[in-house]
Amino acid sequence: MAAFHIGECIRKTKQRIPLSEFEIRQLVHGITAEPPIPDYQLAAWLMAVCFSGLNDAETAALTMAMRDSGQVMRWELDGPVADKHSTGGVGDKTTLILAPIVAACGVYMPKMSGRGLGHTGGTIDKLESIPGLSTELVPDDFLSLVKKAGFAVAMQTGNLAPADKKLYALRDVTETVDSIPLICASIMSKKLATGADHILLDVKVGSGAFMKNDADAAELARRMLAAANADGRDCTAILTDMDRPLGMCVGNAIEVQEALEVLSGDIASELGGFCITLAAELLRMAGRGSQAECLAMAEKAVASGAAMERFAMMIAGQGGDARITDNSALLKLSSCMRTLKAERNGWISAMHSEEIGRAAVLLGAGRMTKADAIDYGAGIRLCCKNGDAVRQGDVVLKMYAAKESQLDEAEAMLRQAIVIAAEQPPTVPLIHQHYSN
Amino acid sequence: MAAFHIGECIRKTKQRIPLSEFEIRQLVHGITAEPPIPDYQLAAWLMAVCFSGLNDAETAALTMAMRDSGQVMRWELDGPVADKHSTGGVGDKTTLILAPIVAACGVYMPKMSGRGLGHTGGTIDKLESIPGLSTELVPDDFLSLVKKAGFAVAMQTGNLAPADKKLYALRDVTETVDSIPLICASIMSKKLATGADHILLDVKVGSGAFMKNDADAAELARRMLAAANADGRDCTAILTDMDRPLGMCVGNAIEVQEALEVLSGDIASELGGFCITLAAELLRMAGRGSQAECLAMAEKAVASGAAMERFAMMIAGQGGDARITDNSALLKLSSCMRTLKAERNGWISAMHSEEIGRAAVLLGAGRMTKADAIDYGAGIRLCCKNGDAVRQGDVVLKMYAAKESQLDEAEAMLRQAIVIAAEQPPTVPLIHQHYSN
Repeated sequence: MAAFHIGECIRKTKQRIPLSEFEIRQLVHGITAEPPIPDYQLAAWLMAVCFSGLNDAETAALTMAMRDSGQVMRWELDGPVADKHSTGGVGDKTTLILAPIVAACGVYMPKMSGRGLGHTGGTIDKLESIPGLSTELVPDDFLSLVKKAGFAVAMQTGNLAPADKKLYALRDVTETVDSIPLICASIMSKKLATGADHILLDVKVGSGAFMKNDADAAELARRMLAAANADGRDCTAILTDMDRPLGMCVGNAIEVQEALEVLSGDIASELGGFCITLAAELLRMAGRGSQAECLAMAEKAVASGAAMERFAMMIAGQGGDARITDNSALLKLSSCMRTLKAERNGWISAMHSEEIGRAAVLLGAGRMTKADAIDYGAGIRLCCKNGDAVRQGDVVLKMYAAKESQLDEAEAMLRQAIVIAAEQPPTVPLIHQHYSN
Repeated sequence: MAAFHIGECIRKTKQRIPLSEFEIRQLVHGITAEPPIPDYQLAAWLMAVCFSGLNDAETAALTMAMRDSGQVMRWELDGPVADKHSTGGVGDKTTLILAPIVAACGVYMPKMSGRGLGHTGGTIDKLESIPGLSTELVPDDFLSLVKKAGFAVAMQTGNLAPADKKLYALRDVTETVDSIPLICASIMSKKLATGADHILLDVKVGSGAFMKNDADAAELARRMLAAANADGRDCTAILTDMDRPLGMCVGNAIEVQEALEVLSGDIASELGGFCITLAAELLRMAGRGSQAECLAMAEKAVASGAAMERFAMMIAGQGGDARITDNSALLKLSSCMRTLKAERNGWISAMHSEEIGRAAVLLGAGRMTKADAIDYGAGIRLCCKNGDAVRQGDVVLKMYAAKESQLDEAEAMLRQAIVIAAEQPPTVPLIHQHYSN
């Protein structure tokens, strides 16, 4: 066996000499070994990766090695197992709608999710706005619930790809987050460790996303498909517009309310159509039929109430108050409300999602540091969207917060975020691209 | 006062956005502050510098900030104070010859030097091969000796640019040594802290040097001159060939012997001529006369024995046996000797200095790690040099070591290092370039 020298790895990556699979495995092993590779050497390597990149073989090897740094799950279920990942956006409540639909159509979705940070929200926070609901499930209870409801949503544990967890913390403080191969390995190591056969990747692109342009988003999608392919997984990636928020609500309880609207039958909205498209794609991947058959199946799951029923089963199974599925007013919004009105006639030409996400944080709906507490009832409901005509005085959005001072701060930011133009803007499709491996 | 964020500095350097002088001062302050900036953040910044570089203003600010991280010396002497720095080479005993010459001509040279590491030697090790001589002088004794002999040579202390000391240790383990602005700041922070008015920089270029080609060496020289200029110092840089060793001897005691040969009057040799040229340049910088007058002055200092007298005063003042200046055989060479003979007729076309330096380490004359002990008597004496005609069986060099096994190892390496060609090679001048600020 060849000897491993971290200095040699740093030097090679710096000089754009590819690392061998052995070197990458040893490097990842060294992240969590005792004694570990010193952080300063990992940091130097990470920065070298930011400049030199990694080739596809290195990226796949890094992904697999990080996957294997902790528990690799295997599901003992009597049907196909699917998973979905979003690279993080504003107003993204897709999982809450998608999972019950596919579950209702016979595809299992044991979902591990994370909390929100900065201007992007997290599925765990949104779910925890449901009274009583817990996302900390012991493995046996989680599996039982998946068998019964077809899906469950648990907080991602440190035992899943712990090398990624440590590396991510280091990237966060060394300005080495924005490397596409590192982002790919971080996402896919966890996705592959969660053991789904079919993986749908939602790569957000735009001002409110990590990937600011289609070229970078496409490259990330290509890398993630290659890593999934190297592990023999069925994978599809779509590029989704994040210049605007997804749907009409941004927050926690308010986003659950919006998810309930879709599950109640509102699939004509942009969000509803999007979730049906994604659900149909997962069903098609899982072999449930042709594209048309899967679309019909997904629509029927909503229309019949089967998806809502699955949602209620999940909520009850995780200790939450399932009555919200009949009465979304049980999801309390914060007591201070203010509307923002159009200052002129025209068309909504931009709703900058990053600023809207930041405004939601100011309202109390998100956190800037991991230690911050969340006000689940805080948030924003948009009353119009890009391309809509507005007249002066029309309500553009509603804000909810615990304190008036929070409304003041958020209002200033939201006024910047929403642009009303004199001419009707061109329409940008929500889904930019669609790739399969 | 603006707030300082190390993450912001890393991001800016990564994106090639220049740091302000304030940011660089804070960054350097943070290296030795309590609590210090974490090593992993410094390592990420260092790697970003390797890729993005630093502009001249940033390099000068980094140099000044590191200079100010420890003691900044001021000499109370009644004449000009000069200093010389070599970027590290094989067989470089220039200081031992240059310092007594300029001292004899009325220019003070309080010299701080370091030990050798790897294939390059260090002045401190060479001097310590003189029986009894110590390079650990208390400041008062050092100053007294400089006043009396015109020069003294002390070990560089940790109090001189401590930020550089810590940063260098980190660069050494993170593959971030080879950045020209970082090398410039490391060298010049110490040079400027030692307080000389006139600084002569000897930038080695070639296979045995840090700078492998003239373009890199010229860039390093340009940066160092700019940093000296920013601090109002008089500075000259020369580029010296290090494809071949400097002079005929490589080791410690054996290099002192060679220095004594020059000081005894052998200024016709390449080494002798080189030292006279450098001494004259320092004298000219210090205002001792025209170039021709300074050359004559330097030659006379050797011919008259005045320089040797200064050398003897320094040795005695540092506790060493000054009788070596009359009898160089008092410098004992190691007991095992072997000659290497030419295997064919021809011309010496290459004497690869890095391999010769490594062979000297194998003989015991150097150290691969800081903890290694040195055999002061070990070394190599070359009997011919690049361009010389040799006949099969001629002695090419002599090796000295404590053990026969060391001779075996070194011999194999030296056979690779010395190339005999069928045709006479072109002559490469020792001094490639000469720059002043």
